[in-house]
This record gives sequence, structure tokens and C-alpha cells, in this order.
Amino acid sequence: MPIYKAPANDTLFVLNNVLRLDRYHNLPGFEDATPDMIEAIVGEAAKLAEEQLFPVNLSGDQEGCTRNDDGTVAVPKGFKEAYDAYCQSGWLGLAVPEQYGGQGLPYTLHAAVGEYMSSANMALMMYPGLTQGAIAAILVHGSDAQKETYLPKMVEGTWSGTMNLTEPHCGTDLGLLRTKAVPQGDGSYKISGQKIFISAGEHPMTDNIVHLVLARIEGAPEGTKGISLFIVPKFMVGDDGSLGERNAVTCGAIEEKMGIHGNATCVMNYDEATGFLIGAENKGLSAMFVMMNEARLGVGLQGLSVAEIAYQNAADYARERIQGRALSGAKSPDKKADPLIVHPDIRRALLTIRAFNEAGRAFTLWTALQSDIAHRSGDDKDRQVADDLLGLMTPILKGVLTDKGFDHAVMAQQVYGGHGYIEEHGMSQYVRDARIAMIYEGANGIQALDLVGRKLGLNGGRAVMALFKEIGDFCEENRADDAMVVYTKSLKKGLNDLQAATMWFMQNAMAKPDNAGAGSTDYMHLFGLVVLGYMWAKMAKAANEALESGTGDADFYKNKLLTGKFYMERILPETALRKTRIETGADTMMEMAAEAF
Amino acid sequence: MPIYKAPANDTLFVLNNVLRLDRYHNLPGFEDATPDMIEAIVGEAAKLAEEQLFPVNLSGDQEGCTRNDDGTVAVPKGFKEAYDAYCQSGWLGLAVPEQYGGQGLPYTLHAAVGEYMSSANMALMMYPGLTQGAIAAILVHGSDAQKETYLPKMVEGTWSGTMNLTEPHCGTDLGLLRTKAVPQGDGSYKISGQKIFISAGEHPMTDNIVHLVLARIEGAPEGTKGISLFIVPKFMVGDDGSLGERNAVTCGAIEEKMGIHGNATCVMNYDEATGFLIGAENKGLSAMFVMMNEARLGVGLQGLSVAEIAYQNAADYARERIQGRALSGAKSPDKKADPLIVHPDIRRALLTIRAFNEAGRAFTLWTALQSDIAHRSGDDKDRQVADDLLGLMTPILKGVLTDKGFDHAVMAQQVYGGHGYIEEHGMSQYVRDARIAMIYEGANGIQALDLVGRKLGLNGGRAVMALFKEIGDFCEENRADDAMVVYTKSLKKGLNDLQAATMWFMQNAMAKPDNAGAGSTDYMHLFGLVVLGYMWAKMAKAANEALESGTGDADFYKNKLLTGKFYMERILPETALRKTRIETGADTMMEMAAEAF
Repeated sequence: MPIYKAPANDTLFVLNNVLRLDRYHNLPGFEDATPDMIEAIVGEAAKLAEEQLFPVNLSGDQEGCTRNDDGTVAVPKGFKEAYDAYCQSGWLGLAVPEQYGGQGLPYTLHAAVGEYMSSANMALMMYPGLTQGAIAAILVHGSDAQKETYLPKMVEGTWSGTMNLTEPHCGTDLGLLRTKAVPQGDGSYKISGQKIFISAGEHPMTDNIVHLVLARIEGAPEGTKGISLFIVPKFMVGDDGSLGERNAVTCGAIEEKMGIHGNATCVMNYDEATGFLIGAENKGLSAMFVMMNEARLGVGLQGLSVAEIAYQNAADYARERIQGRALSGAKSPDKKADPLIVHPDIRRALLTIRAFNEAGRAFTLWTALQSDIAHRSGDDKDRQVADDLLGLMTPILKGVLTDKGFDHAVMAQQVYGGHGYIEEHGMSQYVRDARIAMIYEGANGIQALDLVGRKLGLNGGRAVMALFKEIGDFCEENRADDAMVVYTKSLKKGLNDLQAATMWFMQNAMAKPDNAGAGSTDYMHLFGLVVLGYMWAKMAKAANEALESGTGDADFYKNKLLTGKFYMERILPETALRKTRIETGADTMMEMAAEAF
Repeated sequence: MPIYKAPANDTLFVLNNVLRLDRYHNLPGFEDATPDMIEAIVGEAAKLAEEQLFPVNLSGDQEGCTRNDDGTVAVPKGFKEAYDAYCQSGWLGLAVPEQYGGQGLPYTLHAAVGEYMSSANMALMMYPGLTQGAIAAILVHGSDAQKETYLPKMVEGTWSGTMNLTEPHCGTDLGLLRTKAVPQGDGSYKISGQKIFISAGEHPMTDNIVHLVLARIEGAPEGTKGISLFIVPKFMVGDDGSLGERNAVTCGAIEEKMGIHGNATCVMNYDEATGFLIGAENKGLSAMFVMMNEARLGVGLQGLSVAEIAYQNAADYARERIQGRALSGAKSPDKKADPLIVHPDIRRALLTIRAFNEAGRAFTLWTALQSDIAHRSGDDKDRQVADDLLGLMTPILKGVLTDKGFDHAVMAQQVYGGHGYIEEHGMSQYVRDARIAMIYEGANGIQALDLVGRKLGLNGGRAVMALFKEIGDFCEENRADDAMVVYTKSLKKGLNDLQAATMWFMQNAMAKPDNAGAGSTDYMHLFGLVVLGYMWAKMAKAANEALESGTGDADFYKNKLLTGKFYMERILPETALRKTRIETGADTMMEMAAEAF
């Protein structure tokens, strides 16, 4: 049977020792986030994840969702109860303004506990996850009336939300979308068209579902400039907030997919459904991007979440399963064999996963903190710097943590041998679930293009230059510290590769954009390797400081230093390979005729 | 709907231009393998794979196998018909001696066409695949009577075979196995115990199933020295070859697994089943290894097979699906968007897969040829050299082609975006099917250990030194050839990394075996990268020669050169990273306490 224990100590280490959240007590919402409060919140979240969400994870995968003939959808047993427990403790609105029923706490905290929830049950957490994206879009682009009508119910979780972008012929290229909106003269529109891959599109866990739908108003320009965003409620909402008649939006089918079986991924048919414009006409894409950016951080987090639970199970199995003998001689001579954990190759796999997870956690919370500063700081400069960083890190966080999250779920599965391939241990589920995170909210190739094609050159490269300086300064400042040498030396080398690759793009991709495309995925990973290395260097510094001060659990900090050292020795050197690949450019790959593939 | 077209031209290029099979006409079986004959065989195999096996691949995955209450097992619709078509055309016995009903043709040819079969339907091909392993063991270790009783029926496919190794508490470490064999005094034994993960353990496609079972004779020594191999037929066989009563071996359950749903993976219960010793008492493991070695090549081939069909579908999708515009400006301005194939990042993915597949095909056939020479040559020295190489290459071929085969099925799936995640396009199936190949017949970590712990040092490193010399000589001989520079230069660099890593093991792993374990997986991949690079260099030479001679399709050879260049530029440089990792050794990973993982 699978296990899961929320890594609360690791989270608290990042929040308190590395990010030092107490420094931000002057930001709105942070004044309540005292160390005691944070510890209590993290502890409660751990409990909910372990005791309510996790127990229905494997069964949810095996049972899946089914569409009944009447178009209603059944979710796995226990999902409704677990969902209710999540909502009733207020987790959905943790970072939402109090005005709409939220708790107004930092988004950083929301991300911290969100990791546990998705580890425990990724498919289930997609239901409130989509709601959170919809809340974000309504908060930014909705009218006051729309906010009052929809947000409180969504924040308490009695109504859920969805994002409706994809159509059968268009996913990434939304400019091709065909769903039509016809104005009715009363401020409403009739929406018609088909949307596919709609997560949480139909389910029985909430009283209403608030669909956010991209559509083209009759006569609007072609391409992305003619797309508007609409609210299409499953049940019409009266002026008093009461639910009225059923809207003409129905689930036509549930997709048969590789994983996240507990989530109802629906084909949604809009047949002159009543919708309401949100934001300005033809500005739907920018409104949708508010959801998208928040969702991308959430998806990156899913990569980490699944890799974390996969790691925990693999580590547990490696300690328990006896098979073969240590290369250096029997370690448990009283038993018929040694546990798998004696084998270096098993340790290599486990430490690789762990080194990414611990740095990935710091990376996620550091990025979430930029989001808080960008949205809550009273200082213009602070907001700009944080927003720059947030924009730059979003595609890297999404792309790298999900690519690696999947790779590492596979690596953890491998520790089980044949037992990893059968469904009862849960390892197959983690792999199958993790796979989608590389695809949705912009496939990782799109993240890489967003990075090299948009984010890198934005404002003359302001964001990237600032970050290079920050990392370079960190290396310089800690150069004389013997305890930091192993970290700063490798980090500096990685940074050099990243800077060289960035320079290469500047010199070779302006005139020939294919050179940027040819290196985009390698560049995203190169950047990720360096940022995660930076996180490790910061964690090593914090661990050294804690050890010096003599407070806390010395073994905990020593293991941090060891895991960080592993990252620096074995993982970060990959930057050189990525740089080499980038510098080969696009010529060879573009030379082959399309029909020759 | 998925597509598949057997890459016959690529196969023929390797057999005729690269390996120049006509040079071996003096080996038994090769005299019939004329170029015309080879082309005819390859063409027939392509037809069978495309027209009979492939059409029931996706449906077989979706339907899966079921165990009925009476212990019988149902396979997917159409499997029996496809299996019969395969057997009736004589494919099962292609390389089996004519004496037992086979065709006595080269194993190299068997491997060549085996690729197509597994591409078209991996799950189905496991049924005859297990039979072939059992045939190999009986051929080498069986008595004449056993050969006569079992082989002809197995070769014609009316009886199938299985390998029974794994028990719930032991997989890799067979020394722990508990299945018991009690001698009956009449030459037979009563076999009792439970075996798990038994592929093709029970099914209705053949009249009889010949289980090869590892068990411990009462009173035998503990560990691997007390294991014997037994034949346990599902139905007892009379002296006249007629089938008698049902033996006490039954399928207790079918495993729920991630993929290869069309294959019945069974829990097999032996309840005083009648068995017959094959080979000597307590020498079961070496008999089993005959099956195992052949099976490992077959599993490596599966990695290639699945990556090939995944590639073909992804390339097709990339040419057909229109989405977005080329970075360098619209390529299909008359359409609303360009096909995916205009994007460098898509080409990067496709060429990465293809560069491995084409080199993997050459690698497989080159290794299979060593097997033919080792088994059929009349020259002692030739046999020894080939056998050395075969032993050295087996773990690399199995480990590298299956690790990469899986990675590349995932990469191909990614080209489809969200459509890759739903089951109807087949991409999910390829990923789920490919996953098992990294695990069974010795998980890839075990392959890596076999390489560094056994194969590397065997006979004073004779095999590895001979291969290094062969590759070095190739680089030297072609050094002055301008058309070869891009290939030989990169290959030489990769070879240097491999030699340095090998030297590092010699200096650091003798006294401290954990250093070998810590670098084993990286070393296996480093070795694989260089061998595949060598294959590319040989293919480039053959392509250049063909271009010079002006025979054949020039575009075909030019694309070979281009794909090989891509491998040299983008993929082979990974050797440096692998070497760096190996040289960090085991210290960091062994320092962490087991309970801290």
C-alpha cells in the first residue's frame, strides 16, 4: 500500500530559514503569517492531505469517472467527502481577499500547502485548482457585480470553475478557435461550439459550475485579436444568488486518458448557452492569461508533488525490500539479503529525485513569494522587480518541474522492479498522472518558446540581467566561506554556461529565429538547472547558519548539505551539455525536408 | 488512428550496406540469405506486421486479458488469428535448426523482422517471444528426448513456452527462491510454489503451454547454487506426443498493470505439478541464462520497436496538424496555420528519436550478427571474438535501447500535445508498453551492474579492449576522408570519454566496489552513446559510398548523413556529462544514513 507524509519540516525550513518570510511582515496578509501561525497552517494542511485526500487517491485512479446517459458525471467514491473536507477548512480561499470570503493569507502559503494536496491526490485537487484559476480571472477582469455574484460561492467551494480553451482543431494556437458568441441585446450572449479536454467540466460535487469560455463574438476579427472571455454558468444565477434553470452547456463525453482518472476531463458542448462577457470585448486572451499564469505555477507544483510522493514510496520500498547483497559485503548478514538501499545505483536514483524535489520546493515558494510581492507590495520598484522575476520564472517552473517530475516518477517506479509496473503499489499511477503536467496549460515546448521568444528579451532583458547579477553576487559574497565552496563553485560554473548560452542567442537568434527555437528546450532546462542550483546554494547557506547557531536538528541540516552536494556534483554539470546543444543551432534540423521525416 | 509502416529500406541498408551480410555466406544458414532472399523475407515480414499484427494492437490494449472463474484466460479479439498467421508463415522458427522444424536462417534476420513484429504489436509478440526463449534453453540444455518431444510443436507455435523465475519475495535475487521440487523416483518431480509476473502464463491460443520453472530440489544447497530448471507442461505429453491429463499448474490471477494489456501476465500456482529436470541438478541458473541472454536482446529490440512506431506516428502528426506559424515567417500562408513540422523544437524531438532508432537498428543487427558468428562460425578465434562482443553488448543493448525507447515514446507523445494523453491515438499505449522493457529480463540497473561488475573485467578486459581498438581504428582509417570528419571527430571524442571512464573504474573501483555501482548506470549509457555513435559512423561511411557509386536513392542516403550529423552534434556530446558523473564516485551518496532517505 502506498504511503504519504507531508514534508512539513522541509517546507518550514524553506519558509523560515531560506526565504525568511518574517522579513515581509509589512505586506498585506503577511502580518498574520507569523512563524507559529505558519507552522499551525502547514500542520493542518499535512493532516488533511494525509488523512482525507490521500486515502482515496489510488482507488480514485482505479475507479475513474463515468458519464451517465443523462449527461451527469459520477466521480470516484469518497471524492465528494474529501472535497468537502478541503473546502470546509477554508483551503480554497486561503490567499483570496477576505472581502470575498477568503483568508487573505500569502499566496506563498497557498503554494506551500498546495504541494501536499496534489501529492496526496492530484486528480481530486484539480477540481478546486480549476476553481482557483477562475477566481483569479474574475478577480482581475470581472465587474463588481460578477465578483459579488460568483466569488463567495466559488471561494467556499459550493460552486466550482473551469477553463474552456481547447477545441478539437486548436489547442496551442487559440487564434484558430471557432466557438461563437452572439449578442442578445440584453448584455448576454448565446455561446455555441465544442470544447475538449475540459478538466472538471461536469461533476456532482458542487451546486453550480462556472465555466469560463473563450469564444469569438460574431463579426470579431480573425485570429487571437477577436477572442473574448465569457462566464457560462451551468445553472443560471438569479439576482438574489439563487440557482435558476439549467444552461445549455452539457458534457458530451469523458475522455479516456492515460492518467488523472479521478478528474472528469470532458468534451463540453455549448448549444446557444447563455454567457456573460468578462473583461473587454476581444480581450479574452489577456483575461485568460491571468488564469493561465496562476495555473502554470500550479501545474509546476504538480510536477513536484507527484515526484515527492513517488520518492517517498520508493525510499520506503528501498529500505524494506531485501534483495541481493551490498557490493562492499553483506550489510545485514543475519538476513538472507540486504535491503535495496545498500546499492549505490538505488541511492543515485533516490538522491537525484530528492535533490530536485528539495530545490524544486524552494524554487516554487521563492517564485510564489515574488507573486505576493508583485501583487501586494506598496513599493513600485519592489513590485516591478518581483513581477519581472515572476514572469521569467513561470515558464521555467512549469516546464522544468513537470519534465523532471515525470522523469523522477519513472525513476522511483524503477526502484520497485516489476512491482512498480503493476497498479497496486501506486507507482504506475504517479507516472501516468505526472505525464499530463508536461502537456496542459501550455505544453513544455511552448513554455520553452515563451522563455526564449518573449520573457528573455522583455524590457531589454531586464529580468534576466537582474537575476544573473543576483546569482553572481551570491557566489561572490560567499566565495570566502569554506563551507560554501562546493556550492558556489559549481553554481558559478553553471551560471557561466547559462550566460554564454544567453549571449549565443543574442548573437545568433535575432537574425535567425529558428536558432532560438532549436535551443529553446535545452535553454529552459539549462536555466532550470542553474536556478535550482541557486536554490541549493541558498539552502546550503541557511543549513550552515543553522548548524553554526546550534538550533534545531543537526542531522536534518547535514542531510540538506549532503543532498545539495549531490546536486552540485552530479546534476548541475548538465549545464555544459545543454550549452553545447544550444550552440549547434538550427541548421542541421531545418535542412531535412518535411516529407522526409 | 495510429499508423505503422515497417522501415524495410532502413533494415536493408543496415544488412546490405553496413553489415554487408553477403560476406558471411560461408556460415551455416547464411548461404540461403542472399540479397534477394533477404529482401523477400523482409517484405513478407513487413506485410504481416502491418496487415495482421498492427490492426489489433490498440484494440488489444483497450480490451486486455481476463481470467475466467475456471482459471482459463481470454485474450483480446483477433489475437488468436494474428498469432496463427504469424506461426503459419513460419516466423517463429526462422532461425531454429531445420532438424526441429525451423528454417535455420540467421538470427540476424530473425532480429531484423522481429523489430517490425514488436512495433506492430508488442503485447501479442510476447507470446511467441517467450516460446523462443524456451526453445533456446531446451536446444542447449534439453536431452534429445526432450528436444524431440517439445521443440517441433513449439517451433510450429501450436505449443507455447514460458519462463518462471520471479516469486513474490524474489525477483533479481533468485537465490532467495522457494519453489520446491520433490523427486518421485521415476525421473519426475513434484513442483510446488507460486510464481508471479509470468508472461503468457495462461492463454487459449495454443494446445499446450511448456512452462520452464526454476525450483529448488529438496535438500539442495541454499542460494543460487541449489536452483534447478524444470519443464512443467500444462498438459502431460504421452510417449507418442499426444496430450494427456491436465497438470497441477494454474493461473491464480492476472496482474493489473500499466501496459502490455494484451499479454496475460499471470500469477502461476504450482501445486505438486509434475515436472522434468532440464540440464543438470542445481545448474538451473546457467540454463535459465541461455533464455535470459536471448530474451535480453529481444527486450532491447522492443525498446527500439516501440520508439519506431511512436516516431512514425509523431512525424505523421507533425506533418498533418496545423497550429501556429513558423518562427521564420508563415510557411503555408494559404492556410490558417503552418504544420507542426516547421517548428525547430518539434524537429529536435523527432530527430532525436530517429537518430537513436536508426543507430539502434544497426546496433541490434550488428549484435545479432555476433550471435550468429559466435554460434555458427567454424573458426575458433572468430567465435571467441564474436562471443566476447555479444556478451559485452547484451546489457548495453538491453539497458540503453529500453531506457531510450521509453524516453522517446514519451517524446513522441509530447508532439501530440493533449491528444497524446488520450488513449485513442495510441501514443499513451506506446509509452505504457515501452515502460516494462526497462524492467523485465533484469531491470536496467542490473544490466548496468552486469556490465561494470562482470562483463568489463571478463578475461582481463579482452572484449572491451578489442572494441575500443576497433572503434579507434575506424576513426584513424577514415581520418583523411573529408566527408567523414564530422562523424569520426565526435566519435573519437566520445571514445576518449569512454576510455577515461573505464580507466577511472580500473583505478577506483577495484578497492571500492561502490564506486563501480555509483557510476554503473552512467557508464552503461556512456557506452551506449559511443556504440551508437560508432554505428552512425559506419552508416555514414556506407551512405557516402552509396552516394559516390551513384546507385540507389540519393535522398535516402543524404537523410542518413543528416540524421547522423544530428546525432554527432546534439546527442553524442552527452558522453562528457556521463564521464563527469562517474568520476564523482560513491562517497556523497553512501554517506547518507539509510533511515534519512
